[in-house]
Amino acid sequence: MQRMAKRLMNFGAGPGALPLPALEQAQIDLLDLDGTGVGVLEHSHRGPAFDKVLVETDALLRELAGIGDTHEILFLHGGASTQFAEIPLAFLKEGARAGYVLTGVWGEKALAEAKTVAKLKRAEAELLLSTKERAGDKETFLRVPEKLPTMEGAAYVHFTSNETVHGVQFLELPKASATPLVCDMSSDFLSRVVDFSNFDFVYAGAQKNAGPSGLAIVVVKKSFLEKQDVGIPKIWDYRVAAEQRSLYNTPSTFSIYFTRNVLRWIEAKGGIAAVQAENDKKAAMIYEVLDARKDVYTTRVAKNARSRMNVVFELENEAIEKVFLEKAKAADL
Amino acid sequence: MQRMAKRLMNFGAGPGALPLPALEQAQIDLLDLDGTGVGVLEHSHRGPAFDKVLVETDALLRELAGIGDTHEILFLHGGASTQFAEIPLAFLKEGARAGYVLTGVWGEKALAEAKTVAKLKRAEAELLLSTKERAGDKETFLRVPEKLPTMEGAAYVHFTSNETVHGVQFLELPKASATPLVCDMSSDFLSRVVDFSNFDFVYAGAQKNAGPSGLAIVVVKKSFLEKQDVGIPKIWDYRVAAEQRSLYNTPSTFSIYFTRNVLRWIEAKGGIAAVQAENDKKAAMIYEVLDARKDVYTTRVAKNARSRMNVVFELENEAIEKVFLEKAKAADL
Repeated sequence: MQRMAKRLMNFGAGPGALPLPALEQAQIDLLDLDGTGVGVLEHSHRGPAFDKVLVETDALLRELAGIGDTHEILFLHGGASTQFAEIPLAFLKEGARAGYVLTGVWGEKALAEAKTVAKLKRAEAELLLSTKERAGDKETFLRVPEKLPTMEGAAYVHFTSNETVHGVQFLELPKASATPLVCDMSSDFLSRVVDFSNFDFVYAGAQKNAGPSGLAIVVVKKSFLEKQDVGIPKIWDYRVAAEQRSLYNTPSTFSIYFTRNVLRWIEAKGGIAAVQAENDKKAAMIYEVLDARKDVYTTRVAKNARSRMNVVFELENEAIEKVFLEKAKAADL
Repeated sequence: MQRMAKRLMNFGAGPGALPLPALEQAQIDLLDLDGTGVGVLEHSHRGPAFDKVLVETDALLRELAGIGDTHEILFLHGGASTQFAEIPLAFLKEGARAGYVLTGVWGEKALAEAKTVAKLKRAEAELLLSTKERAGDKETFLRVPEKLPTMEGAAYVHFTSNETVHGVQFLELPKASATPLVCDMSSDFLSRVVDFSNFDFVYAGAQKNAGPSGLAIVVVKKSFLEKQDVGIPKIWDYRVAAEQRSLYNTPSTFSIYFTRNVLRWIEAKGGIAAVQAENDKKAAMIYEVLDARKDVYTTRVAKNARSRMNVVFELENEAIEKVFLEKAKAADL
């Protein structure tokens, strides 16, 4: 299918630009999924055509991300913000405690939501460590802790691998410790090689790198699932989702389908390592320019926490900012 | 965009067949939404292009369904099953009671989930009335109550307007009473003219008549919203969703966008009354055939509860069923 639409470069902090082959495949499958005569939106989630999609998506993700049989992959409704509430609902039993490590606003939101849920469940969600600091006239996040603190007896410790707003990323991810590790990987999932065996629970809103919004991808260790609370609604019960292969109720079938297309594209590119190499190269080029022109650009994030996904910089003054935005628009960025 | 794909007729109990113009528009907008140079999946939910989509979807739905300023329209993650848990979480305060009227399996699922949530919130979700009855060798649902029972002092009374599995529908919808009325309208939303002023809370999984799966459309009375519990997670707080125009977190933008396309198609057809007339005519034709051949087909649902959306009948024996399914397949149904 050829289209001559004018496609702009997308540098927004919101959803990522999606691969053209994945979009073009979707144009076809909207009317006729894999030659079935029925469009992808119209297939039952319990029918063979969608099942094939689901099986392929799971298999591709396992293969590309190196996710072993120790972990379940779940495709759930909502985005990362939904997981902010679902995780403590499922894993904070009465009287239990969880610790939150904050390196940006998404971690703050996760903790706030966990505190509300903890109250409902008569449990505790606690601030374990925050890298928030005063820089100039405001409070901001500029770094990641050298080592993730442990928290003895805790249900889990939660952190955010990449913070979009502040451009702060754990360039080196923490290793497994005695406390189960939960990671919000929304904005760098599939962008880098990750050893998932270190994590008990990883979640990502799909709209950054994997597909459309409205889908959360969860990678959860089977042994962690066994620790889940049982008295919670079925729709938010990860064990039910695992038993029913993410089909307890009608999932966001289009989002799962589109994720499959993106995974096929990643495979064709040479896998996640190839995607990472490209991301690293792009980020290095941008930081090089920013560092070379300190008279114009200010970058304050510590070098060992500079995000490969969201390069955050400030311009010296508003007049320069205006010129910058105008030139970017003229260049179709 | 012309396509010669072979499109089958879809009589499945799952997602409905979608209007071709809505699908063809989506093919274009996947790459370039409304001439913006960026595809619908790639636009930020906070940008002007998606905002236009959201505003149009809300306005079209209000106009076509006759929803007044007394009610908010919300576009939420998940489907009806997510609402089964979210409604009691939000509207059952500690010590409060809600009543459930069951006319099929979806009502049963809603009650089961509400009971789990009620326990968490130290409240009560109660079976108020069930039309389950023994017919032959099994228990089934064949009718709707003549009048919806009231429940003094209850937070709400919940019922299901159309039960897909048993083909039982409230052909005449209940009127408002002293107890707030909550209705799961998943499978007949947009299929019939409804006086929304009778309801405090209506919800529908979009995938039956409005669009893709992964979206729940909620129509909630503002005065009912004010009664909501406050100590619940923000992601499930209907007041937050209303204040933030369904943009508290990234919504399922594609599902909202596609619902817009479907609403445009309904408008072009002459509105919901025209859709209803067509549905009624189709259903009447099918029931006429079934009634005329009682030697082959058995329909057990009471005539005043026969669903216009899901015609349920039994065939006399398995041999006939096999022939029926083979002939249907040969006819591309």
